[in-house]
Amino acid sequence: MKVGVLGATGYAGQELVRILHRHEAVNELYLASSSVAGNVYESVYPHWSGQNVGVLQDENVPDLDVLFCALPHGLTAARTSAFLERKIKVIDLGADFRLNSAQVYEEWYKVKHPASELLNDAVYGLPELYREQIRGQSLIANPGCYPTATLLALVPLLRNKLLQTGFLIIDAKSGVSGAGRGASLDTNYAEINENFKAYGVASHRHTPEIEQELSRAAGHPLSVNFTPHLVPMTRGMLVTIYAAVQKGVQEEDLRKCWLDQYENEEFIHVLPPGTWPQTKFSSGSNNAFLQLTIDQRTGNAILVATIDNLIKGAAGQAIQNMNLAMGCPEGQGITGTALWP
Amino acid sequence: MKVGVLGATGYAGQELVRILHRHEAVNELYLASSSVAGNVYESVYPHWSGQNVGVLQDENVPDLDVLFCALPHGLTAARTSAFLERKIKVIDLGADFRLNSAQVYEEWYKVKHPASELLNDAVYGLPELYREQIRGQSLIANPGCYPTATLLALVPLLRNKLLQTGFLIIDAKSGVSGAGRGASLDTNYAEINENFKAYGVASHRHTPEIEQELSRAAGHPLSVNFTPHLVPMTRGMLVTIYAAVQKGVQEEDLRKCWLDQYENEEFIHVLPPGTWPQTKFSSGSNNAFLQLTIDQRTGNAILVATIDNLIKGAAGQAIQNMNLAMGCPEGQGITGTALWP
Amino acid sequence: MKVGVLGATGYAGQELVRILHRHEAVNELYLASSSVAGNVYESVYPHWSGQNVGVLQDENVPDLDVLFCALPHGLTAARTSAFLERKIKVIDLGADFRLNSAQVYEEWYKVKHPASELLNDAVYGLPELYREQIRGQSLIANPGCYPTATLLALVPLLRNKLLQTGFLIIDAKSGVSGAGRGASLDTNYAEINENFKAYGVASHRHTPEIEQELSRAAGHPLSVNFTPHLVPMTRGMLVTIYAAVQKGVQEEDLRKCWLDQYENEEFIHVLPPGTWPQTKFSSGSNNAFLQLTIDQRTGNAILVATIDNLIKGAAGQAIQNMNLAMGCPEGQGITGTALWP
Amino acid sequence: MKVGVLGATGYAGQELVRILHRHEAVNELYLASSSVAGNVYESVYPHWSGQNVGVLQDENVPDLDVLFCALPHGLTAARTSAFLERKIKVIDLGADFRLNSAQVYEEWYKVKHPASELLNDAVYGLPELYREQIRGQSLIANPGCYPTATLLALVPLLRNKLLQTGFLIIDAKSGVSGAGRGASLDTNYAEINENFKAYGVASHRHTPEIEQELSRAAGHPLSVNFTPHLVPMTRGMLVTIYAAVQKGVQEEDLRKCWLDQYENEEFIHVLPPGTWPQTKFSSGSNNAFLQLTIDQRTGNAILVATIDNLIKGAAGQAIQNMNLAMGCPEGQGITGTALWP
Repeated sequence: MKVGVLGATGYAGQELVRILHRHEAVNELYLASSSVAGNVYESVYPHWSGQNVGVLQDENVPDLDVLFCALPHGLTAARTSAFLERKIKVIDLGADFRLNSAQVYEEWYKVKHPASELLNDAVYGLPELYREQIRGQSLIANPGCYPTATLLALVPLLRNKLLQTGFLIIDAKSGVSGAGRGASLDTNYAEINENFKAYGVASHRHTPEIEQELSRAAGHPLSVNFTPHLVPMTRGMLVTIYAAVQKGVQEEDLRKCWLDQYENEEFIHVLPPGTWPQTKFSSGSNNAFLQLTIDQRTGNAILVATIDNLIKGAAGQAIQNMNLAMGCPEGQGITGTALWP
Repeated sequence: MKVGVLGATGYAGQELVRILHRHEAVNELYLASSSVAGNVYESVYPHWSGQNVGVLQDENVPDLDVLFCALPHGLTAARTSAFLERKIKVIDLGADFRLNSAQVYEEWYKVKHPASELLNDAVYGLPELYREQIRGQSLIANPGCYPTATLLALVPLLRNKLLQTGFLIIDAKSGVSGAGRGASLDTNYAEINENFKAYGVASHRHTPEIEQELSRAAGHPLSVNFTPHLVPMTRGMLVTIYAAVQKGVQEEDLRKCWLDQYENEEFIHVLPPGTWPQTKFSSGSNNAFLQLTIDQRTGNAILVATIDNLIKGAAGQAIQNMNLAMGCPEGQGITGTALWP
Repeated sequence: MKVGVLGATGYAGQELVRILHRHEAVNELYLASSSVAGNVYESVYPHWSGQNVGVLQDENVPDLDVLFCALPHGLTAARTSAFLERKIKVIDLGADFRLNSAQVYEEWYKVKHPASELLNDAVYGLPELYREQIRGQSLIANPGCYPTATLLALVPLLRNKLLQTGFLIIDAKSGVSGAGRGASLDTNYAEINENFKAYGVASHRHTPEIEQELSRAAGHPLSVNFTPHLVPMTRGMLVTIYAAVQKGVQEEDLRKCWLDQYENEEFIHVLPPGTWPQTKFSSGSNNAFLQLTIDQRTGNAILVATIDNLIKGAAGQAIQNMNLAMGCPEGQGITGTALWP
Repeated sequence: MKVGVLGATGYAGQELVRILHRHEAVNELYLASSSVAGNVYESVYPHWSGQNVGVLQDENVPDLDVLFCALPHGLTAARTSAFLERKIKVIDLGADFRLNSAQVYEEWYKVKHPASELLNDAVYGLPELYREQIRGQSLIANPGCYPTATLLALVPLLRNKLLQTGFLIIDAKSGVSGAGRGASLDTNYAEINENFKAYGVASHRHTPEIEQELSRAAGHPLSVNFTPHLVPMTRGMLVTIYAAVQKGVQEEDLRKCWLDQYENEEFIHVLPPGTWPQTKFSSGSNNAFLQLTIDQRTGNAILVATIDNLIKGAAGQAIQNMNLAMGCPEGQGITGTALWP
């Protein structure tokens, strides 16, 4: 396959390159960067010295089988029709095709959607929940990192009517790489290290994406409290979710639902009771880990999910989508356990 | 004053020593350690070289005005009567006198309470909420770190009936120093760094302490979901709290309640709207910072509070209690802003 | 005293404010920032909320007793004459008055020195080595952080002819706050965390400052290898120095020399043999810690010194210089031990 | 191949398992742990959940092709003869076979060598320097992490007589994982984080190993100053080396020597002039990065090398040795770039 990456020098872009470079079904790699085109890849990332991954191209995309777009929102959508007409499958790691409604997109992103006519054609690329729709697809919206962790925990339980939906709390924590690569006072080491904070409280753009998919699972519109926090670490994401259970539902019912959904999944691991996920379990891998309990004193369920925000939360899941879209084995190039410690 | 510290080589103990050493009303310091008595303090903590803080004593406590006990639970209570009879005021940084009920203590700590007859005499030492009861007191239970941050945010709002109490979520995050000083695989650097996890889910011992004080504020028994998490940082604590508001309550009502309670407080700072607390705002200081909003989509309140777990969450608050108990200016020895960055 | 700070919102500037705010001899504080003048200080640093430190001024400096300049090089020198004429003592935390030679300055900083006529009037403000020259002075060049740590270790030994000078290696390590506050890809958290590197190899601007002062101590010109490294931590600095000893010199001779120089110093602590300095020993304090040995197999001396780069390496030392210049007790406002852990 | 790991639950052991699990020439894996035999691997390391790597065995080693010993020093040597007699190739990640001299071993490790008769049979497993001796070997001493980084930089230059050997300074910095997995106050997160220190000054056990191999390269005995430091990070190692060059030697001569040695090496990368190694360039990979300069003012060479201490410094190099010993492609299972960021 010939595969391209737009935005190949961002953190998600570089992670795509790392995985694609060793992917056995990929025999040609086209790497583009609008800002540093013309330079060898190792001039941006010296740890690629000696790997011969080549020169960064401009964005005049040649004929490709698959194109990953790891670009700021708005930039992908404007060019997608042209790619699709050329039979290039598009996997968008940005936000342009995640929301079904152009109106919701415009409300949260404050710009008119550049290609609302394509929204119906895009599939939401969370393989463990929408696998059959993804196979062979040409336009895939790769989910956000927070939605991925959240939906893996909640969707099966909502589909099976095990949770109430009136008071859903998603308290999320992320490493700093989620903010992307760039110069910013907010991500200055001295401002982040030995520090922890909430941000985007009641206003983060992943909120409508989470609500859309949870509403679909529940069968009716619902809203959530979603609060992201920034953890002084580079990689990793963990969400802690609180919900009331439906009358009579026991911890075993919730666990069984997860196991029914995930026990044959390569990347989703429901831990044994009492073993709670840690972000490092996922770090450097495409694996997600889940755990839950019902607090007997309040009767509420507490769910925890963890992923690597740059892999299952971005590049790894994008490759998983590519594998499904192209008919490769789903785990090709992305198997393996975390780097520990 | 003559002041003593039992457990002077733990992290909270050392922080007590640091503050007491520069406290102008303290002219004699008795530092005890059961494990390393007989050694100079700087043999344990070389950064005290040249400060002449003296030799660590055994626990045969001389006549003192105030004694801080920074010991594992159970050890303080057994000896407190004897101290009180000798007119030594006791400020316990452990858990022995925080719970009013010996039965609840035994349920959570799995040992019989060694001095349940003293529970009625002890006052819960959170000055901004119980200042008048603390003045002149002889037995003060210094609150836990998680309860301190949580209660500062919630108690005024519950006292004023602004929140519903049926679904109270306290999602808490702490630095690692809260686990104390010692050898343990769980706190090994390589296991903690670049890692984030929940722990003590639905079972942490600060839960009954939080519920006791929130129930007192609300005027009726209530229960909460309290989930602590471990952040890869040394110091700092932040709690994110979710609650439904009472009908008709607006964000301004909540904010006004906090300001009414705290605007003259030296250590509690309600930040201007939109500025969310970061743990580093408190680091190295006795200051707490608060912020809140009502998420318009769900109608729920989101409250955030941050403190330094070893200062306002332990040693600093203990000194504040000493100042109140002994009639010193409340902020003596503990004023000042965070160390930044 | 009326005291001013130009550049009050940088890291060194904020540290100056923190110390001056509690300094008992300071009764008026003038804080200036060219970029955010007109805003209250807590709008830049919310952890100052409630401290009433006031509004940031422009740089039209009023009549003051002392003015600290924490500005990029070149900006201070151009204005210093005017301040001195108005009898304002100037303590420059930048590089403008550290080098005696305008030519060397121009070689390393690539700009013409704006006030070379003042170079003879400036004193190098390292109190433990040049105390008498600093007392009452009007123009003080506050040393760089790397030079401070290096000179404290080496100057006494060179003055006493205990070391050879032909092969002096200074391998230095610093926390990231030394790079200052600002937006930069190089200091992005994700680029620094879990990473360690050398930088400015054979070209760092503190090299001529170190060589100038070591040459003065040795009584003849010498050159050194100085290699700074960046440590993934916010604060702290440690230098490891290698030198051949003069014939017959023993470890005891070196240690005695240090003790003769420093045993009555409040801030300089020669640790007991076998206890090696850690940066955290100094963190948040004005204290320096020293240790040495002679490696019996090579006969070379290995010296280690540590300081807090923002305190003894910047703001704390600047206050110590102010105290000497103004006749205050030398340690006023800057006593106390490190924040631990 | 059937491959075994003794000490499979330490950090180096787990890294071996991670690499062997995906190594295409390995079809049977025998994992042993003296402390937790009988438990599934994921009970120690939950991130292995779902990978079916099996139950930890006791140390009754079955018939194997290769056995990796990741054990404390002394434990491997005592049992090696028995393994060799059974035609099991032994790759020792510990110190037992690194030193040629039993006497030097006993001097530094303070125990009698348990199998000094085997010392002549062991080959020092640094493939880029001793490749031909390693091929087909039955007993391989895997180098220490510090020696690996040091020797890669120095050996070619000493073999080619480009450096003087009278004043060799090796200032080394390591992440904390090098201390191994275990409970210890010294590696407690709160004692390491935001802290930097030298340790083992003039006494670290990697010193004789470095000196042995450098002496071999130089053709005569030499001694070095080797000072390790602990960096607050989990993985990574960087050494900064200072040496006087032989008369007339230029920077280009040194660089050419490195390039001659390494330009066809898969894992050793001499960076372009001016790009200095960062530990993160190697992190998670078997790659080493090198850079050097001659400081024109002193005439001394400054060399920097970086590796991942657990991969090229331990498990990765051990697999590289296995590949050579067994006739597999040298890079099998260990290719690929660092995990970034």
